[in-house]
Amino acid sequence: MDFIKNRRTIRKYKQKDVSSELLNELLEEAFRASTMGNMQLYSVVVTRSSEMKAKLAPAHFNQPMVKGAPVVLTFCADFNRFSKWCRFRQAEPGYDNPISFLNAASDALLVTQNFCTLAEAHGLGICYLGTTIYNPDQIIEILRLPKLVMPVATITVGYPDEMPMQTDRLPLDGILHEEVYVDYTEQDIDRIYAAKESLPENRKFIEENGKETLAQVFTDVRYKKADNEYMSEVLRRTLRLQGFDN
Amino acid sequence: MDFIKNRRTIRKYKQKDVSSELLNELLEEAFRASTMGNMQLYSVVVTRSSEMKAKLAPAHFNQPMVKGAPVVLTFCADFNRFSKWCRFRQAEPGYDNPISFLNAASDALLVTQNFCTLAEAHGLGICYLGTTIYNPDQIIEILRLPKLVMPVATITVGYPDEMPMQTDRLPLDGILHEEVYVDYTEQDIDRIYAAKESLPENRKFIEENGKETLAQVFTDVRYKKADNEYMSEVLRRTLRLQGFDN
Repeated sequence: MDFIKNRRTIRKYKQKDVSSELLNELLEEAFRASTMGNMQLYSVVVTRSSEMKAKLAPAHFNQPMVKGAPVVLTFCADFNRFSKWCRFRQAEPGYDNPISFLNAASDALLVTQNFCTLAEAHGLGICYLGTTIYNPDQIIEILRLPKLVMPVATITVGYPDEMPMQTDRLPLDGILHEEVYVDYTEQDIDRIYAAKESLPENRKFIEENGKETLAQVFTDVRYKKADNEYMSEVLRRTLRLQGFDN
Repeated sequence: MDFIKNRRTIRKYKQKDVSSELLNELLEEAFRASTMGNMQLYSVVVTRSSEMKAKLAPAHFNQPMVKGAPVVLTFCADFNRFSKWCRFRQAEPGYDNPISFLNAASDALLVTQNFCTLAEAHGLGICYLGTTIYNPDQIIEILRLPKLVMPVATITVGYPDEMPMQTDRLPLDGILHEEVYVDYTEQDIDRIYAAKESLPENRKFIEENGKETLAQVFTDVRYKKADNEYMSEVLRRTLRLQGFDN
């Protein structure tokens, strides 16, 4: 399983298709992931056509992977199929509420990660697009997602055409807590972030953005409070629109 | 990777410890999963002591795996560590809102699934406890989770002491959509759920619960509307309590 330890996100893909046979095999295996009450509360929309990729690209802030990858997968939290089944079977579903969204989103994200692992094990490269939950309203319209379906993750997939540097990770003891959560002191934070802050690429990042600290690049440039508040409103509105707010 | 295709959830474990060395190795590898902006918005609380397992058990509706497993892991969405780092670096964090919770929960769930795969690859068995998001308030108190930390998944881990039947899954074409989501007709639902409904264990399940259809076992017994509404209120209240509602 060393490929997991050595994995990198891949953003450039070869001009080589990913066959339906392989893709379906990987997805079918991915669906063996744990799922609440074996309800399988997810759907996957497969995008291969250039036209649909061009429509999806703006929702992902035009990151080039969307148009550049042979396959784009949108993993959705889905209580629509299950609720339809209930109604056709004289049962009244009660899944139009926040906990049901979180249950379905959990199911969908477990399957997403399982798919990524399987794809990489088969020599494919993937990129996880976090933008899916920033513009869910646009994606819903483009992919025609009905009520009780909400996109939660997008993965671009293809054969790697690059071998980027592996990104850093925080030291293990900065993430684990034994028995209870012990909150971080200033000394802990200094220690946990020391390696990250000393990386040449991160020092360059601070300089390029005209900031004093790496954290300021995150708070003032990349993930700003005002943007988060705006996207939170979109999220709230979209969950209402998709019927998950009762 | 056939172990993924052949996996089963394991609820009974041998009386054999999982060493810290192995556990840490698996967690460290799991943390190679994709993470938004490389922020690693998660923490993991490791429970080994009988005392803490006994405290956690009721929050998981006393499912026997909590006390029976050598290790219980609680994966948390965590914007506390990152926000502390920002504050100690003259940066003002803006992550006390719903989109930030969903970003951190996504990060945490990807890591959860990655850990499960790695654990199973090393001969361990796992059980995913969906109960974590039903009683997050209790878990927060027991594990002393500060603001901006929210439990999203619990995994019990140990060496398997059972070999249960593999559970069924829906046919692939019931989950995939090509280019756009095509909503399900009654005929689609009949076809997709036919195999599941014909399973002897599911027919027995209907009978034991005195119901007419399998769907009614879900809506009237296992995942009831009233329970979902109650748990949605707990979820809303807990997200406010943990500071994710601005």
